[in-house]
Amino acid sequence: MKRVMLTVAYDGTNYHGWQIQPNGKTIEGILNRCLSELLGEHIEVTGASRTDSGVHAMGNVAVFDTESSIPAEKISYALNRSLPEDIRIQKSEEVSPEFHPRHCASRKTYEYRIYCAPFPMPVKRLYSHFTYVPMDIDLMSQSAQYLVGEHDFKSFCSTEAQVETTVRQIDSVQVWEERVKSRMEDCGDGGAEGVDQAGKEIVIRVTGRGFLYNMVRIIAGTLMEIGRGHIAPQEMERIIAAKDRQAAGPTAPACGLTLVKIEYL
Amino acid sequence: MKRVMLTVAYDGTNYHGWQIQPNGKTIEGILNRCLSELLGEHIEVTGASRTDSGVHAMGNVAVFDTESSIPAEKISYALNRSLPEDIRIQKSEEVSPEFHPRHCASRKTYEYRIYCAPFPMPVKRLYSHFTYVPMDIDLMSQSAQYLVGEHDFKSFCSTEAQVETTVRQIDSVQVWEERVKSRMEDCGDGGAEGVDQAGKEIVIRVTGRGFLYNMVRIIAGTLMEIGRGHIAPQEMERIIAAKDRQAAGPTAPACGLTLVKIEYL
Repeated sequence: MKRVMLTVAYDGTNYHGWQIQPNGKTIEGILNRCLSELLGEHIEVTGASRTDSGVHAMGNVAVFDTESSIPAEKISYALNRSLPEDIRIQKSEEVSPEFHPRHCASRKTYEYRIYCAPFPMPVKRLYSHFTYVPMDIDLMSQSAQYLVGEHDFKSFCSTEAQVETTVRQIDSVQVWEERVKSRMEDCGDGGAEGVDQAGKEIVIRVTGRGFLYNMVRIIAGTLMEIGRGHIAPQEMERIIAAKDRQAAGPTAPACGLTLVKIEYL
Repeated sequence: MKRVMLTVAYDGTNYHGWQIQPNGKTIEGILNRCLSELLGEHIEVTGASRTDSGVHAMGNVAVFDTESSIPAEKISYALNRSLPEDIRIQKSEEVSPEFHPRHCASRKTYEYRIYCAPFPMPVKRLYSHFTYVPMDIDLMSQSAQYLVGEHDFKSFCSTEAQVETTVRQIDSVQVWEERVKSRMEDCGDGGAEGVDQAGKEIVIRVTGRGFLYNMVRIIAGTLMEIGRGHIAPQEMERIIAAKDRQAAGPTAPACGLTLVKIEYL
């Protein structure tokens, strides 16, 4: 018997999230089915992060135990042949039988993307949240720094969630802007006024030791309110202290969120 | 009667290209239908670039004439309400009746994206060409410089194409790399070997005055051969001089190509 760890990437657009559900396609469900067929035994994976419906991943992690003689490193190649094209194993490797993807200490990195322009950009629509309301990156970046460190993030946790503690540690929050160009210049024969049609993609990159349910999306929703000038940056301190979901901004839409990587410490 | 110019963005994945066809959904076909319904008159747009099936655009251009009293700038808002979400007008404006999107001198910018990693990345699959064969950016960038200037690009034109001249001017070709991270670090309890799973996205950005049929995709295919070491960078000079399609590399797949912008001079 050996324990195998998979680094799993997927486009969450067409899935009801990671976790198996009575109805609806899930990442976990597809992995269990394809692995069981491939290895000829009943396989159930354990995931590191149970991402919500519509959330994407470049590096989620899952482990499973198998009696198979196929070398762990080869499983990625064989499994990718039977997986749909919106799920791809990035790596498969043997880990110690004690390794558990949620209990083993880790650092997770998420990115939340916001496409900010007068009109949506079709090639951005699946992986960025669109808004035409302008945002000030500096205000977002300033206020984001209040989140760094160990805090009780109760204000950033969906109330449904049952957890023993809402204290978490955020290692870093970076906010930057990526310009998206589709510019019209002045047209010689009296056409376009040369208005800049460029949109901007705002990226919020959060790294921390474990996150609460919807935490990154609530952080993104709160930073958007601050970027729009609806909440002052220094208010972030009060929002954290309130330990009340109502104090924070709305939960930002799933499509903008991508689990970038999980590093085990 | 007024002439209106549209800046049109689309995700080409689900279309048989720009140009109307007897069978198959096209960008031009959808624009004509939605504009005719919106304005209550028969509208036929004229496009600047007839992009191929599967090619994307952030800023293609189309013009049409209308008797409508709706201000040109307002048409974008109204039209976007009836268009499918994978087509979005970025701007609408009145232009002079003489303005023609193909005859009026312009500078076009295309980007070709290549996602280079051991395995495909689902969130990249629709807008980047995937390859697991490593490529040397420096070799690609060096050889790309031979393309800059006015040349007979017959070697970079699909033979089907009927054109009076195959001489074109390329203003610039930039090749750069964008790192895509989904890294596994060492796992405390004897797991991952900390192999870097990061893929890289190679971007080839070409700006020029008009392009031949498939020209950018053949340039990309040739640069890929050079990046893989199959062709020496200085061979690019010979490939141009040959004026023979057979001398250049293969036509790179459509999905990696995006028409970024058209600037009228």
